[in-house]
Order: sequence, then structure tokens, then C-alpha cells
Amino acid sequence: MRSKLMEMLEARKDEMIQIRRYLHENPELSFKEEKTAQYIANFYKGKDVEVETNVGNGYGIIVTIKGEKPGKTIGLRADFDALPILEETDVPFKSKNEGVMHACGHDGHTAYLLILADCLIQLKSFIAGTIKIIHQHAEETPPGGAKSIVESGVLDDLDAVFGIHLFPTNPTGDVGYRSGYAMAGRTYFKLVIQGTGGHGSSPHLANDAIVAGSHFVTAVQTIISRRLNPFDVGVVTIGSFDGKGAFNVIKDSVELEGDVRYMTGETQQLIEKEIHRIVGGVEAEFGVKCELTYAPDYPPLYNDPKITTDVVASLESMNDPDVKKIVEFPMFSGSEDFSYYAKKIPGCFFYIGCKPKGVEKAYFNHHPKFDIDEEALLVAAKSVGQVVCSYFELD
Amino acid sequence: MRSKLMEMLEARKDEMIQIRRYLHENPELSFKEEKTAQYIANFYKGKDVEVETNVGNGYGIIVTIKGEKPGKTIGLRADFDALPILEETDVPFKSKNEGVMHACGHDGHTAYLLILADCLIQLKSFIAGTIKIIHQHAEETPPGGAKSIVESGVLDDLDAVFGIHLFPTNPTGDVGYRSGYAMAGRTYFKLVIQGTGGHGSSPHLANDAIVAGSHFVTAVQTIISRRLNPFDVGVVTIGSFDGKGAFNVIKDSVELEGDVRYMTGETQQLIEKEIHRIVGGVEAEFGVKCELTYAPDYPPLYNDPKITTDVVASLESMNDPDVKKIVEFPMFSGSEDFSYYAKKIPGCFFYIGCKPKGVEKAYFNHHPKFDIDEEALLVAAKSVGQVVCSYFELD
Amino acid sequence: MRSKLMEMLEARKDEMIQIRRYLHENPELSFKEEKTAQYIANFYKGKDVEVETNVGNGYGIIVTIKGEKPGKTIGLRADFDALPILEETDVPFKSKNEGVMHACGHDGHTAYLLILADCLIQLKSFIAGTIKIIHQHAEETPPGGAKSIVESGVLDDLDAVFGIHLFPTNPTGDVGYRSGYAMAGRTYFKLVIQGTGGHGSSPHLANDAIVAGSHFVTAVQTIISRRLNPFDVGVVTIGSFDGKGAFNVIKDSVELEGDVRYMTGETQQLIEKEIHRIVGGVEAEFGVKCELTYAPDYPPLYNDPKITTDVVASLESMNDPDVKKIVEFPMFSGSEDFSYYAKKIPGCFFYIGCKPKGVEKAYFNHHPKFDIDEEALLVAAKSVGQVVCSYFELD
Amino acid sequence: MRSKLMEMLEARKDEMIQIRRYLHENPELSFKEEKTAQYIANFYKGKDVEVETNVGNGYGIIVTIKGEKPGKTIGLRADFDALPILEETDVPFKSKNEGVMHACGHDGHTAYLLILADCLIQLKSFIAGTIKIIHQHAEETPPGGAKSIVESGVLDDLDAVFGIHLFPTNPTGDVGYRSGYAMAGRTYFKLVIQGTGGHGSSPHLANDAIVAGSHFVTAVQTIISRRLNPFDVGVVTIGSFDGKGAFNVIKDSVELEGDVRYMTGETQQLIEKEIHRIVGGVEAEFGVKCELTYAPDYPPLYNDPKITTDVVASLESMNDPDVKKIVEFPMFSGSEDFSYYAKKIPGCFFYIGCKPKGVEKAYFNHHPKFDIDEEALLVAAKSVGQVVCSYFELD
Repeated sequence: MRSKLMEMLEARKDEMIQIRRYLHENPELSFKEEKTAQYIANFYKGKDVEVETNVGNGYGIIVTIKGEKPGKTIGLRADFDALPILEETDVPFKSKNEGVMHACGHDGHTAYLLILADCLIQLKSFIAGTIKIIHQHAEETPPGGAKSIVESGVLDDLDAVFGIHLFPTNPTGDVGYRSGYAMAGRTYFKLVIQGTGGHGSSPHLANDAIVAGSHFVTAVQTIISRRLNPFDVGVVTIGSFDGKGAFNVIKDSVELEGDVRYMTGETQQLIEKEIHRIVGGVEAEFGVKCELTYAPDYPPLYNDPKITTDVVASLESMNDPDVKKIVEFPMFSGSEDFSYYAKKIPGCFFYIGCKPKGVEKAYFNHHPKFDIDEEALLVAAKSVGQVVCSYFELD
Repeated sequence: MRSKLMEMLEARKDEMIQIRRYLHENPELSFKEEKTAQYIANFYKGKDVEVETNVGNGYGIIVTIKGEKPGKTIGLRADFDALPILEETDVPFKSKNEGVMHACGHDGHTAYLLILADCLIQLKSFIAGTIKIIHQHAEETPPGGAKSIVESGVLDDLDAVFGIHLFPTNPTGDVGYRSGYAMAGRTYFKLVIQGTGGHGSSPHLANDAIVAGSHFVTAVQTIISRRLNPFDVGVVTIGSFDGKGAFNVIKDSVELEGDVRYMTGETQQLIEKEIHRIVGGVEAEFGVKCELTYAPDYPPLYNDPKITTDVVASLESMNDPDVKKIVEFPMFSGSEDFSYYAKKIPGCFFYIGCKPKGVEKAYFNHHPKFDIDEEALLVAAKSVGQVVCSYFELD
Repeated sequence: MRSKLMEMLEARKDEMIQIRRYLHENPELSFKEEKTAQYIANFYKGKDVEVETNVGNGYGIIVTIKGEKPGKTIGLRADFDALPILEETDVPFKSKNEGVMHACGHDGHTAYLLILADCLIQLKSFIAGTIKIIHQHAEETPPGGAKSIVESGVLDDLDAVFGIHLFPTNPTGDVGYRSGYAMAGRTYFKLVIQGTGGHGSSPHLANDAIVAGSHFVTAVQTIISRRLNPFDVGVVTIGSFDGKGAFNVIKDSVELEGDVRYMTGETQQLIEKEIHRIVGGVEAEFGVKCELTYAPDYPPLYNDPKITTDVVASLESMNDPDVKKIVEFPMFSGSEDFSYYAKKIPGCFFYIGCKPKGVEKAYFNHHPKFDIDEEALLVAAKSVGQVVCSYFELD
Repeated sequence: MRSKLMEMLEARKDEMIQIRRYLHENPELSFKEEKTAQYIANFYKGKDVEVETNVGNGYGIIVTIKGEKPGKTIGLRADFDALPILEETDVPFKSKNEGVMHACGHDGHTAYLLILADCLIQLKSFIAGTIKIIHQHAEETPPGGAKSIVESGVLDDLDAVFGIHLFPTNPTGDVGYRSGYAMAGRTYFKLVIQGTGGHGSSPHLANDAIVAGSHFVTAVQTIISRRLNPFDVGVVTIGSFDGKGAFNVIKDSVELEGDVRYMTGETQQLIEKEIHRIVGGVEAEFGVKCELTYAPDYPPLYNDPKITTDVVASLESMNDPDVKKIVEFPMFSGSEDFSYYAKKIPGCFFYIGCKPKGVEKAYFNHHPKFDIDEEALLVAAKSVGQVVCSYFELD
């Protein structure tokens, strides 16, 4: 079946590209992907599969492809939301929804997976097992779609889960992987420090929230410098220090907002504990009131080592002219809500190089000029197809 | 002449109160006192004095009363601008200019001085010398009116200058004084710290302006704690830390604004030098670019000790039932642009108690419920009248 | 009696100088002034007074001179301990006790008071009241001698207390005074911060006491810069940061020692409260254990305004060629345990100028080259004698 | 030859243990290993090799084993210095040099290598190439011995270099490896901050070095938290803050000493640049003089990936009952001056498990109770022997 599948995918390369262009031209923001979801659902109309729509906290779609015989169940996931970015490319299929752009390649993710799914539907008589196609909404905006899909229970029967991401860091033909922790988890936090306002000339009658806030910023640096194992990865960024006021009035309160990144659950817990500790210290030290909102969202992405080894072995054995090179990738500090699937189900999320041809250094994901080499869609389809064949031991 | 003057003032107490009420009802903001200035100018219409209008950078008015014989020249100053405060009192002559209020007593200052000036005009044949009445605009808002009036040169011939302020800290009848440095000088500063923005997860590719700004706030505390003579007075308040941004984006720049207070020119220079030093240090330490705007405005108010001693002696010798008690006041951290006159011309600025009757603790100047005991206007007029008589040795 | 006393003092000027030189040559450290005390006690041998030795926590001596008739009781105090300083002067009566020096003028204080006491003994038939001569040990080293003498109860019957200090800031003939708070109170504190040691390469397994200590030093600056009324006086100095260790071992604990100064009891309480607060904050913020020893010693010296006014009036009325000028002094940041007497008994501690002749700028007290103009001893004796006469209304 | 060598090593296991015990009993500190060096030199007496003594900056010994035929040249290195630690074990061959202890296993390193060298000498007719045995002094104390040996030029002809370290983290039979950066580089630094001393009550007349030093400690935290790529490894520890002084004297200068760790040359440069920057900033900010001594010593240890792959392949193919398991190790934050060889010559430094039998958790290197399972010496000898055989393609 493997070679049959590869042939079918090759034949439908242009179709993938057409779908991707349609989606690119019609991007929708996270949690607002109504038409995109409808488009996807329509694609499956009349095909011999079960389609569930409005899964989770948005427009999630689960397509269940049941093989001829019973067997294991796997999930293949692609996300389909876009970003609040004003596109700056010159492509003929530029976004028609001004200020919204598929600047992260989710158009490509969905395009390849629709075609791959269609092929797998046609080949399902060969398969002993079940494949669930997960068309996921709202990856870009916490709380994201993945968490709610997992919690809905529709994936409770999965034995493994797979997904890919397009990255223009590597040329088309490269497939990247990383075993174990691969992408960062992250947390949003907000700290309101309440002091007491007063006249700028009488500090003793007030309690300066800017001074307390500045000490917090300074003290918080010690989490990374002194509390974290130097061989572990963590970031605490305070991206916002809102203490605007009158120059001659002591500020009564300031509001800080921050971003925390980590590669393991242990680091997540460590930093959370330390931020709480420092907030308590600032309260005691400066006699201010602190209100801390600490909201972890996507956990670190953990690729199951056993499954990743299998994926690498499978890809390395392909001998396919399109899948040229299997490369170990470094860890990424970006986050991805595929991690929610991978936290519950052993899985592997890997990377498809898509650097546009003739470009020295490509614009990275989320840039208004982000673009992909559309040949990479076939690479994605073939790679994931190959992984499916290997998983079900199809030849 | 002295007793004649006192009698005349007593006779016109009600008139002072009427003027004050009119002004109270029709307050105008600093630099916008067009109608107030017209009202004042009208008052002098037909009187045998020289009136200059539009003096300095606004609606300043100088009224020159030339005595019969030549002699020394003194200035008597009253300010006439109001504040951007929504009045919350119940007086029948409440502000009709909503959101603007004579909450600092300048209505009273002007009222007493108009009447006193009129009396002095009538008595000018007794005087060997010249009296310049300085009706000053814009005391409340830097750069203020005083500086520009001084710079205009119209006061170059002054030998001494006097002014008063109404304060409801003390009961009517109290007159306060303080020799030497009496009210604080102040400086406005703005510091823009320019770092480099970047993604919250990649601090090494950015240069975090919030961290640099927080270190500045922390380091600046040492000016007062370690650089200032503990027996001197200084305040450095950072009233505004504008670093609002996205929680997950490293802030590229922050803007801080601050307020500096001091009681002497030496302290002013010390703090200015130290803030510059620390700004330079932060630049070097964090590799950021700093732009510092350092704008001293009103200098510390310095009452000439010799003149103040004379004023106190003069007042203490009054034996007037209205001027009951001469009290030494502590230094004030507030500022007053009378200091520009007193910096150039030996002078004395003193205080007139005006606590409303039956009130335990009066609302202080600048409060929306600020009010005065109008009997204090006569105290002001008599006290200043007495000082004038003593200065010209009139009996 | 007044003129009689002045004559007697003048006649014994050389004797004062001889005594001062003897004491200067034989200085003894605080709490170790055995021979000095013996010398003083011997001085009173055979005189008609009651002498108590070993008063308080050391070699304190109280000499009670009872006048002929009953009346009020006053105390006159002089201290007699020396400092651990290696003398660097060339005087012929240079210290023979190497490393110990009368560098604060206590030799002079004791010398003038012995002679004055002797004269008063001879004149006691004129006095209606009692004079207690307080020869005090250990002024230089907390807890000092004064506190224990007060606590011993021997001064419980005092109605007023007086003392002087020699200061070479002013020429001989100047007598200085300051009403109200005049010299600083002070507190010693020690803070032991206990973290957890560890290898320099593994901060996450340790808890760095140097980092916590540095944050304490930084945070403590805000007490003076933000908590203290800018018109009040306070100092917090951390004079010792003992964190010496191996460069590659994370320090488990550091020991800080500090010095606090203040001019009022309110400021003392404010700073004490704030230091405790910040210590608690550092504990919470860094997860360290803090042990704070907070030991106020000499309180601020408060000169009773009524008594000080009387002293000034008395001195100003002297018309004595030796007591030339009565000068108001600024507040001093130095401390003096006379404050313990003045806290309990209304008193006045004033200053005797003693700048050596021909010197532009004298070495200040505690300098190894400190020296006095010995003519000042007579000024001290006469001034205090005058105050005694005025107090008892002797003429 | 391979099996012959293994047999010879097995036969001399007890001899290795005897040598190790002798060395353990007679430890000598870095740069003072006179007798140890003599012992080693004596071992080679009468053997057919060239022995150079006093190589480099101490007692280094190079033994050159020339094979029958020409070929490549490799180095095998063992260090032989001990530590200033008071031994707390109960072994019968406990250190007789009180306060000095072989607590890092160098006794074992030398013991196995002497026997292995002797065997290779006997087998040299089989070898086409040259083996240089590097008995290195002074590994424990910077600047160490390795750097000077490299600089002496005696190893200029090496094509590859190998070394091992005993670690009780793993059981005997485990051999550990790590390709690429494996052990940390480190730098010692000393910062003297010169302010101006003064009386604790007069901060304005002094310049407080403790405050400046504390700001340095606080600011330096930002290097790791904000300047370092979160995926890189770096540590800056200030292990010593020597600011001991009198509690009431403002400290004129403080001396800080620190330890920097990093896994790459790029991180080394980044941190060095940043520390210099912050020092410059502190100078500017506080007006102090800073003297920074920045002394990088051992660089990060970099195992050549190609050679490491070969070593791993060679060891994995052994099928030897003593060499049981080849394990990838994490990076270590410890340092090792083998890095100087590996910086110049492609090399591999690997790890020999030596956990004492029956012990749950072994005392780690440098602990006074550090001990090894002596069976591990044979593992070391066989592993290195195997690597030599593979390198020269001997069978």
C-alpha cells in the first residue's frame, strides 16, 4: 500500500497547493474559523467517514477513518486558524481578510492533511486499525483548541498521535525531529501591586508602587540566574510594566504582565513556586498588596522517545526523492498546543522544511512576509503517510 | 501714615471680600487668565498710576505707584491664576467655570492687594520711594509667570520684594514666617530608555528596557539615602514608569518621569549631577540608550534673613487686634515661583493663617473643598501694609 | 558669689591645665578607667563632700555637694574615658598608654569640672540646694556609662542636668547651644542571613546568601529615600558585609552590621519598624533564614527648650572677656550618652569652642592629631559656673 | 594483539590496585607532586621507552612508546595530583599526608595507565605508530598542568588524544561518553570596588563601596537571566563578598570573587563581555573605581564527535565481561583541564563507573569519604586499551 499511497499523493500535489491557496486567501482568527471549518467539513461530504464538527471549545472537526479490520487507533492533527497580522507579501492569493493572515503555515498543514486523509479513506481496506483526522481550531490563542478536544474525550481511544509543522528554517526536503522535550511550555502572569498614592514631595505619606514593582523586576531575575539548574531551560520575561502616571504624584499601583517559558514540567513548577515566593517577599518587604494571576497555558511539548525513534527510522528508510534528509532539531522556545495531545497520548510532532527557493534567509513564522515553498506540502503528506504505513506495518 | 492706612484698610474689608468672591466665581487656568487680567486692569482705570499689561509670558500686570519723593523701590506681589479642580464646596460664589477652581487662595491674594494698592495710591504723597504692584499670572503651572516677569526687566530697579500666601493650617490672626530657605525648589525630569525589543522567549536577541528601567529606579534611591547630607532635604520621586506592552514581547523602550525637590541650590546641583551620573551608569551597564530631559523649574524659596528679621520685628510691633500672633513656620516641601523674585531681589514671602471658623482641621490648598476665613484678607492687607510702612520708615 | 566664683576659677586655670595634661598622658579605655577613677576619687579626699565610687556599670563617681540650705538639685556631668587611637600629636604630654588617646576632649571635661567642683565646695555655704558632680566612665563605648548611672537611681532627685563638650570647630570663647533635638540617636544592628551553601556551578542546589544580602542592602536604601519624612533626619549605614568565602563555593551565610542615626524618637521607631519589615521580606523573597539583632543605644540628645533658653540668657548676660560669643549650632549626627540624663531630667548640653590658636582648620574629635586650646578649659568652667549661679539665683 | 592485551591487563589487575593504594596513601598537592613524579619515573626505569620529566610548569612526565613501524601518534593522559582534603574514610591505605587526599580518583587514573603503558611497551612491535603516555601534574589547581604541557610543544605531533575519569555515579562496568561539549569551562574573577570610607553618620562625605558592590551582585544576575540564550548553559556565582568592616564606618572598598561556568567558547565570550560591561556601569553609576581581574582557566571540554563516535563503536563492539554498558552522559558543570588537549588535538575524554559495591549512593568526587570500587581500574585499562587497538586497527 505504501507505494500506492505515495503515488496518489504525488498525483494530487497541485490539489494540495490549490487548497492551501484558497485557505491562505481566506484566513480566520482563532475561535472565529467558522468558514474554514465549513470548508473542511464540505471536503468530506459524501466520503465514507464519520465527521464530528464543533468539537471542543470551537470549530474543531474529527474525521474517523475506520480500516477494514480492527487494530490500533492513531490521530493525525493539523491546525487551521490564522493570525492578527497584516500580510505584506505579494502573492496572488494574498489574504482578502485584511489584518488577518496565515503567517504560521496552518493553511499548508490543513491542505496536505485533507489530501492525505482522502487518500487514506480510499485505501482504508488495507488498514487494520483506525485513523482519526484532527482538524484543530485555535492553536494560536490560549487556551487553544487542543486542550478542549482532549478533554472532550473523542481521542480517548488513541494509541498514538502525530502532527507536523512547516518551518522555513530548512530547505524543502528536510524533515526535522527532536526526541523528548522539544518545544517550550509557557505561562502568562499578571501582577498588580497596590501601594498608596500621594504627593511626589511627601514619600513618607505614600507607598510607592513603582519602587516596589522595580524591586520585583530585579528580584525575579534570580529565578533564572540562581534557582534554575543551569542545564535546564527557562525564561521569565516581564513584557509590560504599566506604571504611567503624573510625574509629581507617587503612583498608587502598577500592573506588570509577564511570560514564562520552560522545557519540562519540573521547571514549570519551580518557576511558578519562585514567582509566588518573590511576590510574597515584595508584599512583606514593601508593605504593598499584590494580586498575582498565574495562568499556565500550553505545556512543554514532549515527543515520546520510542515513537520518535520509530518515526526517524521509518523516514530514514523511505528512499523517496522528495524526503531528502532527516535532521535532529534543537529545542524551540516557541510553544504549540499539540503538547496537550502528546501529554496524554504517546506521540511525535515533527518539522517539515519549506524555505522558499532562491531565498538566502527566509522570513520566520509570524512575520508579515512569511512564505513557504509549496513543494513542501507533498513532503509533509508523504512523511506523515509513511509514518502511518510504518505504524500499521503496511507495505 | 501707618494708622491712616490701617483705618482705610479696615473700612474696605467688605470690598476685599466682594472682590475675592467675584474672582472665586470666575476662575481661569494658568496662562489663560484673560478676563481676570482685564478685571484687574479695569480696577486701576482712572487711578493715578502707570499700568503695564501683558508683562512676561502671559497676562502679568505691573502697577507702579510713585511716591512724592524719590527713594527705594519695592515690589508687592499677588498671583491670580486658578487650578484645574472641580470645586466641591457649597459657597454661594462657587466657581461658574466648571472644572476650574481658586483652590489655592490666589483670589484672596489678589483681592487684598488691589485694595492695599488703592490705599497706597491715595497715600502716595507720604511715600519717599516707589511701590510696584505685581499682579502675576500662572503661578500654578511651570514655567510659571514669575520667571518671565523677572526676565522682562520691569523689576530691575527693585530693592526688596514681598508677598504672602494664605494657609488654612493656622487660625486667622496668625502670621507665619521662615528665614532662609522656606519652600522647596523642584525639577521635572523625563528619562527615555531605549533598548531593543524582541520575543519574550528570546531575551538574548533583545535588550530589555523594563529591566534597565527597574535598575534605574532602584539605583536612584541611593541619591537620597547615600549622597545627600542627612541634615539636608531632598526628594526624588519617579511618578511615572510607562512600560506598558504585550506580556510576551520584550519591551524596547520605557519612559520614566520624575519630580525632584530640594531646599537649597547646592542640593539641587547635587541631585542633578547624581541623576546624570546614574543615567550614564545605566547606559553603560545595560547597553541601552538613555535620553534624559532635566528641567529645573521653581528654585527653592529663600527669604533674605535680614529682611525677614525686619518683617518679623515690624509685625511684632504692630499691636493690632487683627494681627495676633507671629509664628515661625517649618520648611514646606511645596514650591512657589515667588522664589524667582527672591532669588534676584532680597525679599520675604510670609504666610497668613486663614482657617475657616469652627473647623477642626481645614482642607488644605488644592483640595476641592478648600476654603478660607475671609477675615484673613484684612490680616493680609494690614500685615503687608505694615511691612511697607516700616520699609519706608513711615509713621 | 558669682564674681567670687569667676575669680577663683581664673586663679586656678593653670591647675586645670595640669590636670588635663596628666589625664591626657594617662588615658584609659572605656570600662577600664580604673586609675583615672582613682585619680578623681583622690582629688576629693579630705574635702567636705560625699563621694560614691563604682556607680553604674563601671567606674562612675558621684560627688554630692550639699549647699547650706535646702533647694533644688542639679547635676553637672563630665566623662573621663579615652579612645583606642594611636596618638599622632607632638605634645610633651602625649599618651604614655600606646594605642589609647584622649582624642575626644574628655580629659578637658574632667579637668575643668574637678576645679569647678572644688570651688563650689568652697562656696557651698552660699548655695540653697544640692549639686551632684557626675564623673562618668565609658561614654565612648555602648552601652556607655550614663544609662547605668541613671538606672542606679542616684540621680533620681535631680531637677536639672548640665554638661558640655569641647569642639575645635569654633575658636576659644565661643559657646554653642541648640535647643530641642541636638545630637543623633543611634542603633547598632546585625543581620545574619542563612542560606544554603553549595558548589559554584550548581546554584539550584544551593541558596545564595550573598545574593540575598545584596538585595537587602539595595532594599534598605528605600527607608531613607521613601519612608522618612524628607524634613526629618535619618541614616542607615551598612558598615560591614561579611561574606568572604571561596570564589567557587556558593556562600551559605553572610553577616551584615549596620549603624542607624536619627534625631527623634519617632524616626527611631520608623526605621526600626522598616528594617524589621525588609528583613521579613528578604526571608520570604529568597527563602533564607534571617536573624536580626537590633540594639538601639544612645537616644537622640534632647535639650529642654525652657532650660536651654535660660542657659543662653544666662551666658549672654555674662559680660566676661573669656566667654565671648553665644552661637546657635546646627544638629550633629554624632551621638552622646548625655542623652540618657536629658531623657529623664530636663537638661542642657552645650558646646565649648577650643580651636587651637594659629590653626586654619582643626583636627576634629577622634582624629589622631586632635588637639585643643587649653584656654578653653577656663571658658568651660566659667560657663558652667555661670549656669549654676543662674540656676540657684546666686549673685 | 587485542586479546593478548586484554589478557595481560587482566593478569595485572592486582598490580594496578597495589599501585593505586600506594598513591592513595602518599598523596601530594598540585604542583608539589615531587615524590609521585619520582615514583612514576622509577616505574619506567629500564623499560625501552623515552621518558621526559619536568614537562610543562611542574612535574609532568611524557613517556613515548614508539611502535615498530611509523604511523599516527596518539596521547593517553592520566593526572596524578591530590586535593587539600582531610580524608574521612576507613581504608587501610588511608592518606598518610594529613590534610591531603586522593579524593578525585587520580590515583586510579595513574595506576591503570602505568600498567596499560607497560603492556603497550611490551606489545609495541605490533603497533604502527607512536603512543605518548601523558602523566600530568596539577589538574586540580589552575592554571593546571595541561595548558603548559600543550604549550611546551611535546604533543605537537599528536593525531588524537584520550583520557578517562573515574565517577562513582555509575556502577563498575559502565563506561560513559558525551559527544561535543561535555564539561564546563570556567573563569575566576576578582572585582575590587574602591569607594571612599567615612563615618557611618555622614554618607554624603563618603562613597559606600558596600552599596556599589550589592548593586553589582544584583545587576550581574541579568547576564544569565537576560543575555544568555536560554538554551545555552552559563553560571555566574559570586562566592565571596569581602566587605567586613566596622558597623559604623562606611566601607571604603570591597573585594568580590566569582566563578563563571559555560559550555561553549561563545558563552565564555558573552559572559566576559557582559561582566566587563556591568563593571563599567557600576563605576559610572556609583563613581567608584573598579579593578577587575578576569582569568579564564580551563575551557569547556569538547569531545570530537567523529572520534567519540569511533570510541563508542569500539567499546560497544568489545564483548568483554568487564566492560558491560556504554552510556551517554549528560553535560557536567565541573571542569577538567583535559580540555586544553582536546582544544588543540581531536580527542575523547570518557567516564569509567566505579561505584563501590553495596553502596546505595556513593560519595561524589572531592568528598572526604570519596571511595572507588577498585575493579573499575581494570575496566579503565581495558577500555582505553580497546580504543588504542581500534585506533591503530590492531586485531
